[in-house]
Amino acid sequence: IGHTPAGVLSKKCFSRKFEKHFYVPPRLRDASGELVDSVNDWHFAMINDENRNEFYFQLLQHYIIPEKTKVIEIGAGSGILSMMAASLGAKSVLAIEGSLDMARLARINIQKSNFAYKIKVVNAMSTDVQIKDYPDFLPADVLVSEMFGTLLLGESALDYISDILSRRMLTQNVVLPRFGAQYAFLIDCPHVESISSVHSYRGIDLSAINDLRDTASVVFTKQYGFRLNSVPFKMLSKPIRIFEVDFAKDRPGFLPLISTREVVIQESGSCSAIVLFWSAYEYIEEKRFQMSTNPEETLHNFCRDMQWGQAIQLVEFEGAIASSSSLSSHVNAGEIIEMVQRVSHDSVLLQFGLRRL
Amino acid sequence: IGHTPAGVLSKKCFSRKFEKHFYVPPRLRDASGELVDSVNDWHFAMINDENRNEFYFQLLQHYIIPEKTKVIEIGAGSGILSMMAASLGAKSVLAIEGSLDMARLARINIQKSNFAYKIKVVNAMSTDVQIKDYPDFLPADVLVSEMFGTLLLGESALDYISDILSRRMLTQNVVLPRFGAQYAFLIDCPHVESISSVHSYRGIDLSAINDLRDTASVVFTKQYGFRLNSVPFKMLSKPIRIFEVDFAKDRPGFLPLISTREVVIQESGSCSAIVLFWSAYEYIEEKRFQMSTNPEETLHNFCRDMQWGQAIQLVEFEGAIASSSSLSSHVNAGEIIEMVQRVSHDSVLLQFGLRRL
Repeated sequence: IGHTPAGVLSKKCFSRKFEKHFYVPPRLRDASGELVDSVNDWHFAMINDENRNEFYFQLLQHYIIPEKTKVIEIGAGSGILSMMAASLGAKSVLAIEGSLDMARLARINIQKSNFAYKIKVVNAMSTDVQIKDYPDFLPADVLVSEMFGTLLLGESALDYISDILSRRMLTQNVVLPRFGAQYAFLIDCPHVESISSVHSYRGIDLSAINDLRDTASVVFTKQYGFRLNSVPFKMLSKPIRIFEVDFAKDRPGFLPLISTREVVIQESGSCSAIVLFWSAYEYIEEKRFQMSTNPEETLHNFCRDMQWGQAIQLVEFEGAIASSSSLSSHVNAGEIIEMVQRVSHDSVLLQFGLRRL
Repeated sequence: IGHTPAGVLSKKCFSRKFEKHFYVPPRLRDASGELVDSVNDWHFAMINDENRNEFYFQLLQHYIIPEKTKVIEIGAGSGILSMMAASLGAKSVLAIEGSLDMARLARINIQKSNFAYKIKVVNAMSTDVQIKDYPDFLPADVLVSEMFGTLLLGESALDYISDILSRRMLTQNVVLPRFGAQYAFLIDCPHVESISSVHSYRGIDLSAINDLRDTASVVFTKQYGFRLNSVPFKMLSKPIRIFEVDFAKDRPGFLPLISTREVVIQESGSCSAIVLFWSAYEYIEEKRFQMSTNPEETLHNFCRDMQWGQAIQLVEFEGAIASSSSLSSHVNAGEIIEMVQRVSHDSVLLQFGLRRL
């Protein structure tokens, strides 16, 4: 499995970042430095994403039959989804969390919320948990998890879920959320161009640096340090569904390593970048419930806009000159271009290429 | 010296990030992965910061006497400042750059701009350069450099400059820019609070996670993934000058490891965080020339706002309860509080503490 969550591998103390005359609050002194960093970097934002919490609440509410349903959660973190399940009447909840410190904090939250009698927190990677060790909890009826990154499969959600299913730890393969889809669209964005190439300054030629322009990597907006929604951009294409995944049926490796499709340009402009977002969804009585990183949906949700944000890949038409001028990336409304999509064997990395037809 | 720039240590190839079926443009295949990452992460943005370029142009224009002045640059990067110096008539320029790939690109830029006859690019750390090896260039008359991070001394600018001065590589200690100052102010910012602590959700207690709230580290807004200027905030104090540095006179270690000062609260509010910014400046004929990361100055400069941005430290009053509620961090206009400032031995890390008086 490609992705291992923070706080599982490194046990290096948070205090070690600081010299002796610095102040470290007692509550942080013995915590894993990597865990403190990731909780502050995105965990708080994630837990405060109310729309995300409501999405899971709706799904759990529908699937949990009070006093009957047994639930398993992978990557329980703070324990919020497990406690939701418990509050909705789940018979039992097995909450699996890989980080020792995080598992300890989840137990405290669960104790404080008076759910300790039905939730068991296990500090382990889900791949190491065996049915026989938890006969009161497994097999479970519902698997709930939120292991999505800025890319839908960037934190190996399908691999961890698939492992549970293949070992028959679920009675009826109810996986929440069941579906996900990864989307891409093209943008014209002068702000992105201003931070991804150089021109001359007062007659001084700086173009050689453009040789290092990275048109090969998918980069998260969080990594750049700005929210896409905080700058103006123009969509040059509609969102294109790159792939869809059924977490209850698809298995790792279901995506072709390379595939191509045609994309219709909707608006003329300079093609600066490809933007990637995803949606996770579920149909309940024909109604669609959805959680998405579509910029339209993250716009008024600062926590999600900052934390997941979107992913961006700078664009270079294959065969164009190395130091691509804005002219070489101009596209016209009505034009059809070819988009090549590459996926790593573990589905963690994506890459796109554009070709003129 | 605490900080070593990207691309100097790691020679790991950019191509190694990708599996064989991914596409990597030929120009990137053999480049250092770390260098490609840092050029795309902030170098492009830095070079396109026009206000920064103009600041250096003004300083160099004043100090360079055509056909007389010899210039040395540390951390030449793309070569832009060295080429500015050459275009302003410098007799010679020694451009020192630690990264092999970057030095190679600087040479190409210099060649293309026809300055190869007066600029020599040396691929080395400045601390390894000896006067005797460059008799035509050293000692120089002017040292120009831009080695500022999100924190003024976060990339060890003073250490590298000081090393040059102590080895008498400059005739008259003209260092550009000569002065710098680090500032801090307090803010009330609900957006920052929404990504740095949790409350309950539908009666579920999540407060144990607040134990991991990092009130000890200074974190860059770029690292969080949002620009401070893209969210509303209220200043609770005026900017406080934390320290001032004279790059031509001060030596590493000039800052006390611990010091305290009193801060007057100007506006009542919930004290969410301390914001840090800096200014680098120079007086020419009594006129002040300045480059700054003050949010007011980065507001309309996307490149600087995204790249340097500001640094933030979450606030916790010493002695307050661990899971600080908003009440415990409330301050009133007119109130005077004590601010403790801690500096690491290499001046790279800062930390602040607040105490009620």
